[in-house]
Amino acid sequence: MNRNELITQIRRKGSFLCVGLDTDPQKLPALFAKDEDAVFNFNKAIIDATHDLCVAYKPNTAFYESLGVSGWIALEKTIDYLNTKYPDHFTIADAKRGDIGNTSAMYAKAFLDKMNFDSVTVAPYMGEDSVTPFLGKEGKWVILLALTSNKGALDLQTLNVGPADQVEEKLFERVLKVSGQWGNASNMMYVVGATQASMLERIRQIVPDHFLLVPGVGAQGGSLEDVARFGMNKDCGLLVNASRSILYASSGSDFAEKAREEALNMQQQMAALL
Amino acid sequence: MNRNELITQIRRKGSFLCVGLDTDPQKLPALFAKDEDAVFNFNKAIIDATHDLCVAYKPNTAFYESLGVSGWIALEKTIDYLNTKYPDHFTIADAKRGDIGNTSAMYAKAFLDKMNFDSVTVAPYMGEDSVTPFLGKEGKWVILLALTSNKGALDLQTLNVGPADQVEEKLFERVLKVSGQWGNASNMMYVVGATQASMLERIRQIVPDHFLLVPGVGAQGGSLEDVARFGMNKDCGLLVNASRSILYASSGSDFAEKAREEALNMQQQMAALL
Repeated sequence: MNRNELITQIRRKGSFLCVGLDTDPQKLPALFAKDEDAVFNFNKAIIDATHDLCVAYKPNTAFYESLGVSGWIALEKTIDYLNTKYPDHFTIADAKRGDIGNTSAMYAKAFLDKMNFDSVTVAPYMGEDSVTPFLGKEGKWVILLALTSNKGALDLQTLNVGPADQVEEKLFERVLKVSGQWGNASNMMYVVGATQASMLERIRQIVPDHFLLVPGVGAQGGSLEDVARFGMNKDCGLLVNASRSILYASSGSDFAEKAREEALNMQQQMAALL
Repeated sequence: MNRNELITQIRRKGSFLCVGLDTDPQKLPALFAKDEDAVFNFNKAIIDATHDLCVAYKPNTAFYESLGVSGWIALEKTIDYLNTKYPDHFTIADAKRGDIGNTSAMYAKAFLDKMNFDSVTVAPYMGEDSVTPFLGKEGKWVILLALTSNKGALDLQTLNVGPADQVEEKLFERVLKVSGQWGNASNMMYVVGATQASMLERIRQIVPDHFLLVPGVGAQGGSLEDVARFGMNKDCGLLVNASRSILYASSGSDFAEKAREEALNMQQQMAALL
């Protein structure tokens, strides 16, 4: 999906919601207890209940890998279902990969070619040749970690870097600047946690045009209003993710209905902010 | 596998060789062309041909994921084969994972519990709570990226960090220091590329006791002598990885024999260095 198509979907739906499919079998409603295809069937129900309210879906690969082969099958079925039934949705493999060039190329093949996700999250620590193998495919995106939503983000990402005699620059700001030489606002986005909303002003000075994928609203405590105030640009420029707050809105047989209510609540806030 | 057991294997075999199972179906000998289980059968042949010459095996997950479900099955069969037939070998899931705490816990479950690898490589960018979920399991290890072997290592890892009025410190050095509060020399190792051998002296000042996993000897051009001179400690403290130079030593039906010759050549150099 290219940038214009994504923006069109956001305007059409009045939503910049991404639903995170962090599907944990331990947390599924009891009605899935004897379902051998529980993860996919749960995802399918969540997708069917929320598709008109969101513009993106983001399975986190960790939840699928923790189940071994059956998890990988559920992940493939989920992305196939999205690509077949809801091709207007932007899809994100939240995989946080990154390796030396020939190896990153294998990850790009796995997620962007074989599974046909629109995008994959990538960790920046290994630098340019770990990121560029994911670029250059038509309509495909890298979503690079910049400033994450967790407490550990403060361990390295906010360290000051660069020559001592120059203006203060933090590591995540360097990531934003240097990666501007690798990709552009039509094939690269950045992960910026909602728990760091106060940093969004600084981030928008460096990357005014790029889309930002914003986790941390909901279970992690970030504010949607703050994210929109400091992070929105003329094309919206935001994908705000919610996972647990939607997936596990109810543990009963009304889980899909409650997930829809939670997504609708977020979509309505987003429509007002757009 | 705990630290003493690993050191015992190194002394017994006169080897600190790790064979990287970066198995690319495109590069397999022609005799595997019609083998539906080619990746596992190739790995099995390589393992059987090299097991007495090396102390560790390291499949890189990217090569398996690029094949989808069949690749994940081949990865599981490979680690099962190692754990069953060669339980004295240290096993590394070269996955370079790392996410927020509850998600890293899922990756830890995938690789350390379910597949029962001894260790997993982890990217440090997201900080403490992305790394600690991999720790605290008996005999299991985190291998944290510090200074990698690729060109892009110079984009971020060697940036100066920290207060301007203090002694120069690079990002990878901060990773080594801060992660010393998360784990110790019995449950954490570091990735340090052989192409950066000149940095090993500085690294050993910060982490004198930890094991270092050293890629980049062979295809990437690093020198085994330099790595040993600057990186070895009283317990050896090194696992030197070779992947392509061993796996693809021959593209003929003698591939396993030639892989053994290449591994033997490295083991003999290592025995002399120990």
